Amino acid sequence: MTADRLSLVFGALADPTRRAILTRLTEGEATVTELAAPFHVSQPAISRHLKVLETAGLISRTRRATARLSHLEAEPLREVTTWLARYQRFWDESHERLDDLLAALQAENDSPGRGTADRARGDDDEQD
Amino acid sequence: MTADRLSLVFGALADPTRRAILTRLTEGEATVTELAAPFHVSQPAISRHLKVLETAGLISRTRRATARLSHLEAEPLREVTTWLARYQRFWDESHERLDDLLAALQAENDSPGRGTADRARGDDDEQD
Repeated sequence: MTADRLSLVFGALADPTRRAILTRLTEGEATVTELAAPFHVSQPAISRHLKVLETAGLISRTRRATARLSHLEAEPLREVTTWLARYQRFWDESHERLDDLLAALQAENDSPGRGTADRARGDDDEQD
Repeated sequence: MTADRLSLVFGALADPTRRAILTRLTEGEATVTELAAPFHVSQPAISRHLKVLETAGLISRTRRATARLSHLEAEPLREVTTWLARYQRFWDESHERLDDLLAALQAENDSPGRGTADRARGDDDEQD
């Protein structure tokens, strides 16, 4: 992934509506109408968001009869995760490892309502 | 992390100069002058990038004598990695796991010219 592509992907993710569209597409491909339904924005606005996601490689689009279907393409998300992994040792310095976090999240899924309050954060001005 | 905070972090990462600043800060805290040195941009431009990174929680800044030092804060990177992890099963569906990919890349490094052509992707218009 080139630096510009990485910027495109991060930029595409820097919007809550676009992230919500990706989340919706984890349930399966969808039309513009279906994607616009949960949001208080126009279909043209959703179409512009889809164009940004498509340019970043996060969705592909196909035509079926008169409908245009969007399909999640998760590969760029793997690539940015790989980019982020290089910083893992810096958050490991003061926090538990991602594996532990994911295990904790899984445990929360298994028993809802437990656990999050105990993981107090300490990210304010702790350097000397 | 609230949705807006997630947007701030992704937005901050959507710029190659800001990502390069974060990479530099993995080597230790630095002044604006030190951070500006590798780039063909002015110190005020670097200061604006630092403000974006600080607003996103990706750096903290302290004063030492007359210098203002920037310090990497990796916690938001862990949080966005956790957000991205929910998509892992979608890249796993059509691709080998990251571990396998990295193993394959390592194998290619060990014996150049082998392997990549076999991993054909099928992400064009295959939904029916």
